[in-house]
Amino acid sequence: MLIKIAITGKGGVGKTTLSGTLARLLARDGYEVLAIDADPDMNLASSLGVEIPPKPLVDYKDLIQERAGTEGGAFIYNPKVDDIAGKYGVIGPDGVRMLVMGTVDKGGSGCMCPASAFLRALLRHLMLKEKSAVILDMEAGIEHLGRGTTRGMDLMIVVVEPGERSIETAERIKKLSSEIGIKRLSAVINKGGSGKVNHRLEELGIPILGEIPFDPKLMQADLEKRAPIDVGGEAVEAILKIKEKLMEIVEDIRKEQEESKK
Amino acid sequence: MLIKIAITGKGGVGKTTLSGTLARLLARDGYEVLAIDADPDMNLASSLGVEIPPKPLVDYKDLIQERAGTEGGAFIYNPKVDDIAGKYGVIGPDGVRMLVMGTVDKGGSGCMCPASAFLRALLRHLMLKEKSAVILDMEAGIEHLGRGTTRGMDLMIVVVEPGERSIETAERIKKLSSEIGIKRLSAVINKGGSGKVNHRLEELGIPILGEIPFDPKLMQADLEKRAPIDVGGEAVEAILKIKEKLMEIVEDIRKEQEESKK
Repeated sequence: MLIKIAITGKGGVGKTTLSGTLARLLARDGYEVLAIDADPDMNLASSLGVEIPPKPLVDYKDLIQERAGTEGGAFIYNPKVDDIAGKYGVIGPDGVRMLVMGTVDKGGSGCMCPASAFLRALLRHLMLKEKSAVILDMEAGIEHLGRGTTRGMDLMIVVVEPGERSIETAERIKKLSSEIGIKRLSAVINKGGSGKVNHRLEELGIPILGEIPFDPKLMQADLEKRAPIDVGGEAVEAILKIKEKLMEIVEDIRKEQEESKK
Repeated sequence: MLIKIAITGKGGVGKTTLSGTLARLLARDGYEVLAIDADPDMNLASSLGVEIPPKPLVDYKDLIQERAGTEGGAFIYNPKVDDIAGKYGVIGPDGVRMLVMGTVDKGGSGCMCPASAFLRALLRHLMLKEKSAVILDMEAGIEHLGRGTTRGMDLMIVVVEPGERSIETAERIKKLSSEIGIKRLSAVINKGGSGKVNHRLEELGIPILGEIPFDPKLMQADLEKRAPIDVGGEAVEAILKIKEKLMEIVEDIRKEQEESKK
């Protein structure tokens, strides 16, 4: 089975920390993990502990031109991408394979639409081995939901922090994700927000997957450019618990996928 | 004179808090202020203390279609926008006029390219009264620099926090902003990062405009949905100092604008 998880939320809530740590934990459980940095302002590599991130997919301009290139102004939505994940990723700690969608190379050079179309196609056609997982670290905010980059995800996790603004983002994500057919949305409360925002999530009907306490070790890891999982601490322990709860959802998804095959 | 300032940075560093508070402070100094929320995941309204934000510019679909609409797939870059700011804003506390670029209405409905083109045109053609300022609260990250939305800004402020990742974003912003012709880039260090990142900013050659301490009152304001300036506290005091230092830069820009008129 292949499970696809997208991590979303307002900027700065902790998407990348959760993405990188979850990817490493799943890899330690024997999953073949593909972690994709889908944020043009990319920094998943440091959260995974990957020292030299792979060349972004957008840098393979010819490849994109050839396979997702514009034809009369419209992107071809189903480029051939089967070999991309194997060819253009790097292997990081615990065997996590990492891909980077792309960044903005030059001021004024354009938008991320072609790169997003390419990533969307990649996600649709991805074939990994048995027991595999894709973790997608999305850009801050909601534009990716307009683009439909995360269509077809099995689960979307929205990270929130104590504060109304990240809740507003979660509310927008709930609406938009259901419109692109995402059936499962769960929240992770970060920065010790427990108790402060739980009732708001309840009102919104977003189940809580887990909570991560405020942990200065995360700031330490960031300053030292080390992966949080390699620094350890309360936050990482909390993500371990989140991973365990996530496994229950994964089991549901697995059953559903088997049902649909019958 | 009209001074145009864009507030940028990694997600969650405090762009919106700084934007809203600076806008209010400038208005109190007698500036005609236009504050624009250029983040699709918008929340500048609450930071300004605007209770009911204006209808986003993208909601005026006909208007955009007519003035910035696609013709054969290409956006017209110079739509007629002179009357937009007056017509479609709301007036908030201290007389700040507020505009909202737009959000993602529907999952899968598309990207923010048309809205960005419209905003870019708006910014280029904006005519305000004497002693006026535009404060642009940008989306997290760097895609707007690819799109060149902030071309023509007099000053770009990048907000950083204690952590390598927000510094990496600042580095990217420095490179990309110079490529679209931004001549002045300054940093504001937020969340008590003083001493931790100063040397990194020095290495990057980004002058420091000021520092904002970690202040729980900001979280309180967010939870209560009130403008930080109406709640007060150390952070707001610090932004007042930043505003004063900003005035020195504004004076330089004023002199330059006068020189260029001669």
